[in-house]
Amino acid sequence: MEATKATATAKNLVFYPFLYVIWSDAVLRDQEWQTLQSIIRDFTWMEKEDKATLLTKVTQGNAPDRQEIAHWFATVKAVVLGGAEYNNLADISLALAKKELPADWVKENGRQLAKDLQKLEENLGIVGRSAIYRFKEDHPTQTTAHGTEMAFSVEELARFLDGDQAGIIRKVKSLIQKPAFDYVDPGDLAVYREQVLIWCKIVADAGFGKIGYPRAQGGEGDMEAYFSVMETLSYRDLSMVIKFGVQFGLWGMSILSLGTEKHHAKYLPKIGTLELPGCFAMTETNHGSNVRGIETTATYHHRDKTFTIHTPHRLARKEYIGNAALHGRMATVFAKLIIDGTDYGVSAFIVPLRDENGSTLPGIHIEDCGRKMGLNGVDNGLISFDQVIVPLENMLDRFAKVNEQGEFETPIASDNKRFFTMLGTLVGGRIGIPRSAIAASKSGLAIAIRYGDQRRQFGPEGGEEVPILNYRMHQRRLMPLLAKTYAGHFAMQYMTKRFMKRKESEMQELEALAAGLKSYITWNTTATLQECREACGGKGYLSENRIDALKNDTEIYTTFEGDNTVLMQLVAKSRLSAYRDQFENMNFFTIVTYVASKTKTSLTEKNPLIVRNTDESHLTDPDFQLNAFDYRASDLVDSAARRMRRLIGDGMDPFDAFNVCQHHFVNVGKAFIEKVVLEQFIHAVKTSKGQSYEKVLKKLCDLYALHTIEENKGWYLEQGYLEGVKTKAIRKLINQLCWEIRKDAVPLVNAFDIPEACLSAPILTKQSS
Amino acid sequence: MEATKATATAKNLVFYPFLYVIWSDAVLRDQEWQTLQSIIRDFTWMEKEDKATLLTKVTQGNAPDRQEIAHWFATVKAVVLGGAEYNNLADISLALAKKELPADWVKENGRQLAKDLQKLEENLGIVGRSAIYRFKEDHPTQTTAHGTEMAFSVEELARFLDGDQAGIIRKVKSLIQKPAFDYVDPGDLAVYREQVLIWCKIVADAGFGKIGYPRAQGGEGDMEAYFSVMETLSYRDLSMVIKFGVQFGLWGMSILSLGTEKHHAKYLPKIGTLELPGCFAMTETNHGSNVRGIETTATYHHRDKTFTIHTPHRLARKEYIGNAALHGRMATVFAKLIIDGTDYGVSAFIVPLRDENGSTLPGIHIEDCGRKMGLNGVDNGLISFDQVIVPLENMLDRFAKVNEQGEFETPIASDNKRFFTMLGTLVGGRIGIPRSAIAASKSGLAIAIRYGDQRRQFGPEGGEEVPILNYRMHQRRLMPLLAKTYAGHFAMQYMTKRFMKRKESEMQELEALAAGLKSYITWNTTATLQECREACGGKGYLSENRIDALKNDTEIYTTFEGDNTVLMQLVAKSRLSAYRDQFENMNFFTIVTYVASKTKTSLTEKNPLIVRNTDESHLTDPDFQLNAFDYRASDLVDSAARRMRRLIGDGMDPFDAFNVCQHHFVNVGKAFIEKVVLEQFIHAVKTSKGQSYEKVLKKLCDLYALHTIEENKGWYLEQGYLEGVKTKAIRKLINQLCWEIRKDAVPLVNAFDIPEACLSAPILTKQSS
Repeated sequence: MEATKATATAKNLVFYPFLYVIWSDAVLRDQEWQTLQSIIRDFTWMEKEDKATLLTKVTQGNAPDRQEIAHWFATVKAVVLGGAEYNNLADISLALAKKELPADWVKENGRQLAKDLQKLEENLGIVGRSAIYRFKEDHPTQTTAHGTEMAFSVEELARFLDGDQAGIIRKVKSLIQKPAFDYVDPGDLAVYREQVLIWCKIVADAGFGKIGYPRAQGGEGDMEAYFSVMETLSYRDLSMVIKFGVQFGLWGMSILSLGTEKHHAKYLPKIGTLELPGCFAMTETNHGSNVRGIETTATYHHRDKTFTIHTPHRLARKEYIGNAALHGRMATVFAKLIIDGTDYGVSAFIVPLRDENGSTLPGIHIEDCGRKMGLNGVDNGLISFDQVIVPLENMLDRFAKVNEQGEFETPIASDNKRFFTMLGTLVGGRIGIPRSAIAASKSGLAIAIRYGDQRRQFGPEGGEEVPILNYRMHQRRLMPLLAKTYAGHFAMQYMTKRFMKRKESEMQELEALAAGLKSYITWNTTATLQECREACGGKGYLSENRIDALKNDTEIYTTFEGDNTVLMQLVAKSRLSAYRDQFENMNFFTIVTYVASKTKTSLTEKNPLIVRNTDESHLTDPDFQLNAFDYRASDLVDSAARRMRRLIGDGMDPFDAFNVCQHHFVNVGKAFIEKVVLEQFIHAVKTSKGQSYEKVLKKLCDLYALHTIEENKGWYLEQGYLEGVKTKAIRKLINQLCWEIRKDAVPLVNAFDIPEACLSAPILTKQSS
Repeated sequence: MEATKATATAKNLVFYPFLYVIWSDAVLRDQEWQTLQSIIRDFTWMEKEDKATLLTKVTQGNAPDRQEIAHWFATVKAVVLGGAEYNNLADISLALAKKELPADWVKENGRQLAKDLQKLEENLGIVGRSAIYRFKEDHPTQTTAHGTEMAFSVEELARFLDGDQAGIIRKVKSLIQKPAFDYVDPGDLAVYREQVLIWCKIVADAGFGKIGYPRAQGGEGDMEAYFSVMETLSYRDLSMVIKFGVQFGLWGMSILSLGTEKHHAKYLPKIGTLELPGCFAMTETNHGSNVRGIETTATYHHRDKTFTIHTPHRLARKEYIGNAALHGRMATVFAKLIIDGTDYGVSAFIVPLRDENGSTLPGIHIEDCGRKMGLNGVDNGLISFDQVIVPLENMLDRFAKVNEQGEFETPIASDNKRFFTMLGTLVGGRIGIPRSAIAASKSGLAIAIRYGDQRRQFGPEGGEEVPILNYRMHQRRLMPLLAKTYAGHFAMQYMTKRFMKRKESEMQELEALAAGLKSYITWNTTATLQECREACGGKGYLSENRIDALKNDTEIYTTFEGDNTVLMQLVAKSRLSAYRDQFENMNFFTIVTYVASKTKTSLTEKNPLIVRNTDESHLTDPDFQLNAFDYRASDLVDSAARRMRRLIGDGMDPFDAFNVCQHHFVNVGKAFIEKVVLEQFIHAVKTSKGQSYEKVLKKLCDLYALHTIEENKGWYLEQGYLEGVKTKAIRKLINQLCWEIRKDAVPLVNAFDIPEACLSAPILTKQSS
């Protein structure tokens, strides 16, 4: 009788693994408690009395106490740690039975017991292999074992990224990591703005401001170096970068591009040293994107050979003008030239704003734009002119002038064409901004990826916590952005080289390219920094970790130097007019020269064997990738041209037709730019042949290509260019690439070679404290 | 001879429309100049001499002067304004010929002339109907004529949105539009934080802080009203809202939910009046999402019946704690309870932080988190405890206590389960945050949409500038977000009602619902405010227009109260375990009860007639929409369950399997929540039957449904649930809905009834100044 009792209790013991899981985790419903009980009642290998005892343990509301749970846990754990491998709870139950119950009984009932308990396990939905780890002391997994590897030379890749600009980049980096450039709190606008001015002065003193100006004016005539400076400075404070860009780029370059020798000689030397801070006053409150419509007037008086600069009404004030609120002494002002009551279109004039003491001059009214979302170290202002008189020589007269007889003279008779030609000479701004944006993306990714490599959270049952970058979702969030940033880097190197070697006949194309890349890259930067913020969680929200500044300072990059959405439409329009229309001209499709056609390639590509080809070798073949990008770029512009013709043919007003297709046009612009970006990435991979970093660049390039295809997979599926099996294979390969690139991710951001003093995020160091 | 010459010149005159367009806009290439010349040479109706003259006018580099262009323009304009309608430039040329050349000549040559010039027009790609408007003085288009209409009663819709909470909402609105709540510059943290404290005090004085507390403690026992207060306050400063939430929600509700009668009586009255400012100290530096792993200890000493609260190391400090840096006097501190060396899991303790003068108490070390991306009116801090002693009674003992004998007692024996049950009682925070987020989205949309309705930029050739909201792209950017915000509004009303009527047995489900909606809605808010910023251009970047604060303050909503990505995985997990696992428990799939199955419905839906059905009546049928959402939600959870089983069956460690499927799980969570949101939107439309706003709500609901389907169209196409013809029809219908809803957009944001003093954006008023 005694023995029977012991066995009886012991029989309940086989149920311990289940009791533990049920009471420590599960939340059973009324129905489920009943099912559980009825399954137990059906056990053929358990006596009625034992069942009764067991049933009390699995009764809703009749919770065990802590000691009992601890006892179950300890008993099960002793078995699990015994050495054997178990695949489910029923296995453990059987082992418990073998250990504690008479061998005869086990021989007779063991099989049924295991079968019944397995059924129960399935019914409860317990994933036994996972639950078992509750009772183990270690839990090695692939996810845990994953991590950073050093598969290539970071130094070599860094050198490759810098290319022939390594020298100037090194100089700028060595300057900006000095303590003089330590970040300041942006809370007090006055303090921050003064600091940014001081920084710009240091940078100018080092000779970086004038580097792009002609040697005759003290510069080095090296515009490529100027862009490298702007990009590299962007690893530090971005207000400094924009103030730098306003002074040496917008203000100085407007003198250089729109003025003539006399202006260059008089102003550039002082601009290049920051002795003469100035502004670029084009945008007005009522005319930002549609800048051709500005209303400021410059009325010529032949008697005294002067212009009167005037703001006709409040909404025609110059707005958002950098350097205006505090430091600017002069401005390049865009205004409609009026001679004898005739409007000769927009020209640019040098207008003094302040005297040497910083007091505004008579007729100049300046209002501070106040606090902004970011870039608070830049003193933006609103300027209005109340009959301000400037001498004839202050007209920037490269493209138009007033002659000795007081007559208007110009080599470009059309006011439109002249205006857009003027704008075209300022295209450099659309190169500087995306290059700065790329640097900001690099900083954000360096912070988020290095943090993700250190930060541990959650882990397998019974195992240690895992670096969050080992999670597939975290990789999915950051790795494609890393690939896009590398892609953007190579694309902007290409853009810069094209710009340096530009010919007159390429200007429309280069303007479209610069505008498209500016939009594409700055949008990516916004998205990248958003993801970096979220990926760093609460730490990403603290200003000290710098994503705040990076994100908010670059936020306006998508708007200034041309609103991205407008620019993408202009890119599309320039594609449809085959670059035969002035780039900036938003006249709504006066010229559509694009002839829609289905190319042979696209027909070939819809070959059923290809639309379903899921081989990795095919998906990573640059020919497939390029063809996919090219197909999309061509098809979208084709269909846009056809659609426009059809709508207009059907009698719709061209402006309305344009509006109907507007969304389509933005996609035309994007697809075109993506194609250019992929081409350059593939070219960079080719160039790195045989180098230690070739493989990782190829992976990044594949990720860029496939991820972009995935972003547009709805379109590809709609077109029948890809079938579902292939898009699924692409998704899988992207996941795999993310998983693999994760190992290289820290070296890849280290190859950006951003000075630690510039990154400055305490989360990158505090972890170890 | 004289007459002949005149005719000769006049023949060139028919070419004026072309000359004007070529020289004022087009940028011809070398090749194109040649083509143009060769076409002219082939004119049979022009004498050699005339051709020679004309050819000089179309020679690259031989630009006309301004007077000549003006003459062409004036000549053409005179004809165009003559009254007749012209469809292309060749038509105008013919009219010029008829006007200026001998009738005989025209009779003989007119036909060929028109034919030749039409060919030329096509060759140059000139869209004649567009180019003609250069010469007109007015250009009416559908796009120009579009605008705001008043098709429903804004007041009635506002009443419908407020529902039975109208009373409390009205009271809060009337308070927060007072000048005492005028915004302050966030630059000076000290000033801003004091101001926010003052605002909270005013709100508390009005009785809104304690409104959710029991009547016995001075409240009104109205949690629903509490949520309405939090949402409505969010039209004002969001730092105030979060400080309000920390004080009355987190701090007060932790006492209410985790403590017992003695704590309620002692603390709640003073908390509800803000006499006793406090903190909620759960998160630690090393444990945010995985909060179960916190390391702060509370060691019990039975001799003197006290706990010693201690921070074992720097990375176990409580971090980001609101109210900690300056104002908090006490905190609910989560710590592991240790009795006689045994760890009894996490419990909560009331720990005094500061004396009445605000000085920190012995053993308390507080560090200021400093400036943040937003919410700078909230004083977040890091707290560490150096052997701080608190009495036994300070343990919040609803779920566990130390009894008279110094023994641990609890009704929930499992530490895990008890911890997650404790967290579950705090689910209200996950309702307050998305409701605040919805209000922020509403504010952002009110600003961006009203601005878009006023702001004009570009327009048809020769016509006036058009409100930017008339552009399809602008509509595409904002209208779906307006629909999502309405959708979120109804979903959160549903969530709140479910919460108010909650039963114990529904808790796992409600926690999943709250977490999923919190993630879905706060992510939408981030995306919405991003788009609003860009849609307002430079104006959106100025802090005065408030998108800065709205965007940066809500940025952390996606992280706090649970990281969105983690929460979506938990939602998925709760779906796979059929709500049988404690919601917050991120043990990686110990329980998967979901039984994968292909439902009949989904098979039916793949009927070829349906997957290609593009009828508008079908696409706007709630049954189709719900089925599509349901199919996706079901299929994703089905396939996730199958995938998990397969991977584990193939021998993969369950944690690794979880990791492989992580991206999939996030989609499971999202799809489930989207289904719930659509159901509630459809319900709201039904409820509004017969009302003036029924139609517009139906349109918004259709836009929400179709836009969400479009966002996932890649998936639907992959699955064969939709075919390309149908996704294209959906895109077209979305564009149409955006176009139509644009007319209602201003009334729709006005129906949010946000006090003007709260919106406060100068761009909404300055336009007219």
